[in-house]
Amino acid sequence: MPVAGIIAEYNPFHNGHLYQIQEVKKKFPDAPLVVAMSGNFLQRGEPASFDKWTRAEQALANGTDLVVEMPVLACVQPADRFAFNGVSILASLGVTDLFFGAEHAEYDFADYARLVQSAHGDFKTYSESYAATFQKAVAAKIGHNVDQPNDLLGLAYAKANLKLGEPLRLNPIQRKNANYHEVELKAGTIASATAIRQHYLAGNLAKLSAYVPEATLATLKTQRLLTWDDFFPYLKYKLLSTTPARLGEIYGMAEGIEYRLKEQMERLPSTADFDQWLKAVKTKRFTYTRLSRLACALLLELTPAEVKEYNKAPYMRLLGFNAKGQQVLSRAKKTSAHQIIAKVSKDDKNAAYRVDYRAGKIYQLQNQLEQDLKRAPIRIF
Amino acid sequence: MPVAGIIAEYNPFHNGHLYQIQEVKKKFPDAPLVVAMSGNFLQRGEPASFDKWTRAEQALANGTDLVVEMPVLACVQPADRFAFNGVSILASLGVTDLFFGAEHAEYDFADYARLVQSAHGDFKTYSESYAATFQKAVAAKIGHNVDQPNDLLGLAYAKANLKLGEPLRLNPIQRKNANYHEVELKAGTIASATAIRQHYLAGNLAKLSAYVPEATLATLKTQRLLTWDDFFPYLKYKLLSTTPARLGEIYGMAEGIEYRLKEQMERLPSTADFDQWLKAVKTKRFTYTRLSRLACALLLELTPAEVKEYNKAPYMRLLGFNAKGQQVLSRAKKTSAHQIIAKVSKDDKNAAYRVDYRAGKIYQLQNQLEQDLKRAPIRIF
Repeated sequence: MPVAGIIAEYNPFHNGHLYQIQEVKKKFPDAPLVVAMSGNFLQRGEPASFDKWTRAEQALANGTDLVVEMPVLACVQPADRFAFNGVSILASLGVTDLFFGAEHAEYDFADYARLVQSAHGDFKTYSESYAATFQKAVAAKIGHNVDQPNDLLGLAYAKANLKLGEPLRLNPIQRKNANYHEVELKAGTIASATAIRQHYLAGNLAKLSAYVPEATLATLKTQRLLTWDDFFPYLKYKLLSTTPARLGEIYGMAEGIEYRLKEQMERLPSTADFDQWLKAVKTKRFTYTRLSRLACALLLELTPAEVKEYNKAPYMRLLGFNAKGQQVLSRAKKTSAHQIIAKVSKDDKNAAYRVDYRAGKIYQLQNQLEQDLKRAPIRIF
Repeated sequence: MPVAGIIAEYNPFHNGHLYQIQEVKKKFPDAPLVVAMSGNFLQRGEPASFDKWTRAEQALANGTDLVVEMPVLACVQPADRFAFNGVSILASLGVTDLFFGAEHAEYDFADYARLVQSAHGDFKTYSESYAATFQKAVAAKIGHNVDQPNDLLGLAYAKANLKLGEPLRLNPIQRKNANYHEVELKAGTIASATAIRQHYLAGNLAKLSAYVPEATLATLKTQRLLTWDDFFPYLKYKLLSTTPARLGEIYGMAEGIEYRLKEQMERLPSTADFDQWLKAVKTKRFTYTRLSRLACALLLELTPAEVKEYNKAPYMRLLGFNAKGQQVLSRAKKTSAHQIIAKVSKDDKNAAYRVDYRAGKIYQLQNQLEQDLKRAPIRIF
């Protein structure tokens, strides 16, 4: 029996995500659909608009059956490592078919992965500055460019899958209408998450009802959407109060960039926001996204030792499920190589999950809601 | 020629301080008056109401001739060590006569210091829980209790002076009207700094003109008075984001109190303020003031190594002077064992002064004014 899987952020859940789920259902009308979702901090190094429980609820209200949290150490990572962590989690849950959006669904991603296998550096030494070189190598091997964001992520999934011995079949879904970073709301029913967030922040809530399902609209009406600027005061304090030597111990810090991060923060006017600081810090080797991720690691005090620990003993947190999801779960509990955390106890708080607990506490500084202790998985029966 | 000296916080400068200066002038009409003033964070572990420049200006407008900043590592200390650091600074500037307020000006503080010399523990092992025991020992030696706050501080000055070979003559001044922690504005012209701050915060600005000189009134009208609550969000973030092991490296952390600090912060409702947190943390051994100082060390990331470094090579920062103060300064420059920093250069920023620079940057997060770089001493000629 097939089990479908999606790796997602749902930041927030919109009609494009719904369309993707409908495409999964067309292919497998009866298969359970499992989602590995980012927690409160996302792959590109930013806080989630809404917390993980809110977004899991949105996902469960729209056709998914089981939602697990990808730990913060699995998420706040370069694309290749993020993809590897996501694919590992889905595979360990018994997922057979991975679905993902792509600008070119006709690409044979599994084949491309085999072709570029040797062009891919070691995960450990991966750095963003390497991305451009990598893209050239890929084009040379495949015969054409692969440079659209979702195509690239698809390729990353395919490479991760290959590395893991191909536990999943790959099912690219042709993306419709919205480009990834598009900020305009186009006519129709699908807009990018970026566009939706920006229109929310600009106060155009009324316009958004055409682009998001009911569950998301309810969230948009009742909860505050968080951005980096909500956490920027802490980051600022952190940089100003910490010695460069200490900053150097944070995950991802390299080449003395800690001096630059600190120096630029000291120089900026007190009214500057996260974006202005980041643009002041940016260099050719340190891209916007790499720096966002670094800022996130700083905010959350992530260390290389913690990343190592996660990689050695990966785990996931159960966010919610329905009856169909529960069946997947029951089977997975017996077979999964990853620990599945259902409830965060005092012990978890001090063991591996402590990093997510810490991230939750920091997220909570702005959204005011307890993220982990005493939070049971959402059950929809 | 006598040179008068005062150790002060001026938090903010009020008529009680003015009265003290007038008493100094009665005894030494022509002597220069030197003030060793706390910087942006104070002895009892709290941010200053107004920054060091504002408070130095208030002091210079009211009869003092030279104001130097006591470094943060000299200030945020138990009373004995604070007194020692203040007396050392004044002595190194050539001050001959220390003036200080006392509830009992008739006490022979120098004599008391000799009497209790042996009752005093080593500076290094000093802890607040020791204070009660110490007071008993003092009473036994002297023959009566010394338990009023200013008397006790006077005794601390006397002990420091004795330890330093008595470079200063001691001149207690009888305190008038206001008790230290009094919150009421009594009829008359003198009220405690606590009462003045509380009435300012309650919006009773009009009432305060009777209790503060013109320069302070101008500040109260134009600047925002800062309290711990302005910095509480950073402290909160700090405690939630830092592992107990790291917290344990902060100056003054002892007996595993770091676990309690963190635990109580996690448990408090998000609306709780600094005072509520502190009261939740308080124990018999960890008094309110000791914990405030610990919170301050945490906020500013003060380490035992930094305190050691300051004790080995003490220094001071020049905040302001007039012609009379300049004469004291010229002489002191040749003789002072302490480095006198007139302007903070990029080098100072990375040398010993880096700790004050850091404290300034953190203070600046709330008062928005650069505290160190490019700030020249105030000159009144």
